[in-house]
Amino acid sequence: MSMPHLTQARAPLTREVEVMNQHGERESIFIPAERDLTVYVDKRELVTLMTLGAHPEWLVLGYLLNQRLVRSIDEIESVTVDWDVGAASVKTRHGIDRIEERTAKRVVTTGCGQGSVFGNLMDEIDQIRLPEASVLRQSELYEIVNAIRLKESTYKSAGSVHACALFAGSALSLFVEDVGRHNAVDTIAGWMALDEASGPHQAHGMLPSQVADPSHLKKVFYTTGRLTSEMVIKSAQMGVAVVVSRSGITQMGLEVAQRVGLCAIGRATNKRFLCYANAQRLVLDAMPPEAPVVSAGESKALSA
Amino acid sequence: MSMPHLTQARAPLTREVEVMNQHGERESIFIPAERDLTVYVDKRELVTLMTLGAHPEWLVLGYLLNQRLVRSIDEIESVTVDWDVGAASVKTRHGIDRIEERTAKRVVTTGCGQGSVFGNLMDEIDQIRLPEASVLRQSELYEIVNAIRLKESTYKSAGSVHACALFAGSALSLFVEDVGRHNAVDTIAGWMALDEASGPHQAHGMLPSQVADPSHLKKVFYTTGRLTSEMVIKSAQMGVAVVVSRSGITQMGLEVAQRVGLCAIGRATNKRFLCYANAQRLVLDAMPPEAPVVSAGESKALSA
Repeated sequence: MSMPHLTQARAPLTREVEVMNQHGERESIFIPAERDLTVYVDKRELVTLMTLGAHPEWLVLGYLLNQRLVRSIDEIESVTVDWDVGAASVKTRHGIDRIEERTAKRVVTTGCGQGSVFGNLMDEIDQIRLPEASVLRQSELYEIVNAIRLKESTYKSAGSVHACALFAGSALSLFVEDVGRHNAVDTIAGWMALDEASGPHQAHGMLPSQVADPSHLKKVFYTTGRLTSEMVIKSAQMGVAVVVSRSGITQMGLEVAQRVGLCAIGRATNKRFLCYANAQRLVLDAMPPEAPVVSAGESKALSA
Repeated sequence: MSMPHLTQARAPLTREVEVMNQHGERESIFIPAERDLTVYVDKRELVTLMTLGAHPEWLVLGYLLNQRLVRSIDEIESVTVDWDVGAASVKTRHGIDRIEERTAKRVVTTGCGQGSVFGNLMDEIDQIRLPEASVLRQSELYEIVNAIRLKESTYKSAGSVHACALFAGSALSLFVEDVGRHNAVDTIAGWMALDEASGPHQAHGMLPSQVADPSHLKKVFYTTGRLTSEMVIKSAQMGVAVVVSRSGITQMGLEVAQRVGLCAIGRATNKRFLCYANAQRLVLDAMPPEAPVVSAGESKALSA
């Protein structure tokens, strides 16, 4: 497989600004950077993404993959990001078939707002078969939650970003923060496709979910954001059968998780969590003692 | 002015589901409902919104206004929502001029994900002049934060929704929850346009920001979500010069607030807040005693 050529565009992730507090005092705080990145595919303008800008090349690759505009990174010759002009130029090897038609239909989704999914992602999910052998141990889940707690860097310094991460069992593979959580998951998808293409188990134009790669069975996707339908679909598209969230789930997110056989775990903080769907993928090897201390925020969010 | 005819479609806002907790026990919780609502304008499919579904008619009106597809509700003859088929049929009085062209350009924004703004909203913001006399008192801000704390209903029972509210001074005009916070603000925009059209100060096809309505000066927009550029733009489009958020601000949100003269207040909990832009609109009449108790979450989010 030919690997795409990627730039490594860098830009500061936070910006210091002066604010006024409740005492009328001036203070300096950091806020997350936010940049517009217009994606051009073979010189044709596709979309403008608003991003923190940590890994723009992976973001663009993952965006094209998750929107199903390309099936494999094999189709991409290069991604060239230039922050001076806010542009990502994608050069494909053979063009994208019917790109006009395939980017015409809009679904405005939840993602805290009105996301944009081209085409008919919902139609595709019935073709996804997640591997039955993919499971997560409760002890690994607790390690994941703890690893995230120690990690979040831009959030700790500036707040207002979402984090996503990819784990292999409890080992952190990649941690991504972005102002938009769909950008964070797309960035992970881009990195994952590159990682698989460069590893011993090459994908060669197959869907990630069709790859019979044993390392895939240990993959877990973590997000600080809610498990909306779009997040669940993207995880399933990446062939990841277990998702963990600090937040809750929406009804469509739950319906999609049930439909594709994805194990959806939410409200994961400390030793607490709720498994919303496909609990058979969760091995309860580390149950905490009964009646743990319930934090105020959690009980508020869950009591009727 | 002719008021549009609106249905009053109703649907349950939460759904009870069975989950498994960390002790391997089954329990019942509520999750927010989430429905797809496909908007047709004069029988032409425009967009599919994923929504909690509390006020679908106001949502559709506000969406059309905030996307600048219509300038006044005067242009709308009716909005007919039918949850059985997940459709909102909009009938305009005279059609929407150049609708194909104006819905062609996509900007995928932050809104926790990849939102969709048709056209060139950013180009429009320089035309917005927010009234200089619009101010908020600190004492009113504290009343707003407290009113929200007492209010949030779906969030309390099911979590995973965002809330927006419109205040007149410290008096709550409308409180809206939705799975997508852009839906919540669009719903407020729709309600506000109806309210102004039916009141003594009729808008007659003017932009809300151009209306010389004294009651407008007291308007404050509250959101539980982050102050992204899109949230700030939508508030400015509604002619509301003060926004308050429980969360923080992104860089583009701050830049837009500075550019349009909008007072942006974030991290508003209890007696604490940060004013990010245009602090001259905030009258400090209720400063708390020095050195208040800082909650762990807040200090974490703000310390570098």
